[in-house]
Amino acid sequence: MKRTAFFISDGTGITAETLGQSLLSQFENIEFRKLLRPYVDTVEKARDMVQQINAAAEADGQRPIIFETVVNRAIHDELAKSQGYIIDIFSTFLAPLEQELGAGSSYSVGKSHSIQHNSNYQDRIDAVHFAMDNDDGARTHHYKEADIILVGVSRCGKTPSCLYMALQYGIRAANYPLTDDDMERLQLPAALRPHKHKLFGLTIDPDRLASIRNERRPNSRYASFAQCEFEIREVENLFRRENIPHINSTHFSVEEISAKILVHMGIERRLK
Amino acid sequence: MKRTAFFISDGTGITAETLGQSLLSQFENIEFRKLLRPYVDTVEKARDMVQQINAAAEADGQRPIIFETVVNRAIHDELAKSQGYIIDIFSTFLAPLEQELGAGSSYSVGKSHSIQHNSNYQDRIDAVHFAMDNDDGARTHHYKEADIILVGVSRCGKTPSCLYMALQYGIRAANYPLTDDDMERLQLPAALRPHKHKLFGLTIDPDRLASIRNERRPNSRYASFAQCEFEIREVENLFRRENIPHINSTHFSVEEISAKILVHMGIERRLK
Repeated sequence: MKRTAFFISDGTGITAETLGQSLLSQFENIEFRKLLRPYVDTVEKARDMVQQINAAAEADGQRPIIFETVVNRAIHDELAKSQGYIIDIFSTFLAPLEQELGAGSSYSVGKSHSIQHNSNYQDRIDAVHFAMDNDDGARTHHYKEADIILVGVSRCGKTPSCLYMALQYGIRAANYPLTDDDMERLQLPAALRPHKHKLFGLTIDPDRLASIRNERRPNSRYASFAQCEFEIREVENLFRRENIPHINSTHFSVEEISAKILVHMGIERRLK
Repeated sequence: MKRTAFFISDGTGITAETLGQSLLSQFENIEFRKLLRPYVDTVEKARDMVQQINAAAEADGQRPIIFETVVNRAIHDELAKSQGYIIDIFSTFLAPLEQELGAGSSYSVGKSHSIQHNSNYQDRIDAVHFAMDNDDGARTHHYKEADIILVGVSRCGKTPSCLYMALQYGIRAANYPLTDDDMERLQLPAALRPHKHKLFGLTIDPDRLASIRNERRPNSRYASFAQCEFEIREVENLFRRENIPHINSTHFSVEEISAKILVHMGIERRLK
């Protein structure tokens, strides 16, 4: 029997979900049914939520866990009438923080989600377009504007990592595929050489790569284990020979790869 | 005088940062210097952090706020020796959650960040490639596999929204630009008609659009206020005439746009 967990917010629900997922992942022997409920921003919507929570309580035979970041107190009070076990994330921390900071918090709807509306919002959008325009070695003449250039074999995770760094951190990340030809020559492509200090390598286990490539082009030479193993061996040799920092992406998520790259390259994210 | 805030984790730091940003944004009269410190995963790195925290305390003349999701207790204990005001996010919630769930939590390093390694990880990567391949109307023959198709004028925010939905939610989002030609005809493009139930419109204030387009092509007709206003008026008329749900993206972040779309379209994110 799964236990139900709700992530409820009068905003996007990102904070409730991020924290809730982190906490629930610590209980690996319990299976959860997870439901994201953003924009519960009226008392009427809260009443509807109460019905959903109580229905889940009845169906599960145990009360659902509610991770909640509702700023509006009337909506919060309505949710509190449900049978759920409520984890009120904001109240838990805001009272002690107010004391420490010696200031009241502005407890108004949507406030908590205004962080994206400032000057670095446009930086993020520009970074996304930069990643799109400089994906897969399509262009190399903008590399002087890049914060980082990811290199590696085809389908080792370069594109999603670049896009994540752009969206999450506003970092301008290009990527360049190391293809067959480059590997025969066993040299760094000329287009990359002037930007060597910006290069970061991704590698991956050959069987994982073969499996990913097989989804794309089943039973091709491109997807064969032998070809994947060859390409990865050559690329890893190149990374070592040229002293290019690199990580193996096989067991890491896009979030983890991106955070590791930032730490390694010493890029200080501009948090505003 | 700014007050320093640290987001410290032995993992990616995403949870510490997301919650910390949400909480700090409630104090709009205090300026913070925010520092993200992921992968503090040894006692030695924790000692280095203590030095950074104490240096900030001295420079600011007040103790830094530390948002901390360190699972390893030895590392946590080291950080606790600093002069920072520590908000220990995991301990705060895990003890009551253990009681409610009647189970111990697996308090091991990195555990909290393993959520991306399950079966929906590949879904997210596939969704990113789907968004890339179906960006800007480049292809329309994959629309039957799309969860959603964003439509709107050039540079109104379609591409970043699609990529965010892919990365964050694993949703297959295509986008199709409504260009000059389509507007003259005042009809829905033929390629979109069979997928009308998947369409969602983005619109934007004309002066904001003109400003964005001017960054790209300064002083062009494309970027003129008159052209932007014309395009938006025509597109909004089309949305109304064809009953296409739509929102104005001007004052919303990519996160907010995405969450609003999901709520409106009734797409249940597959959270695992």
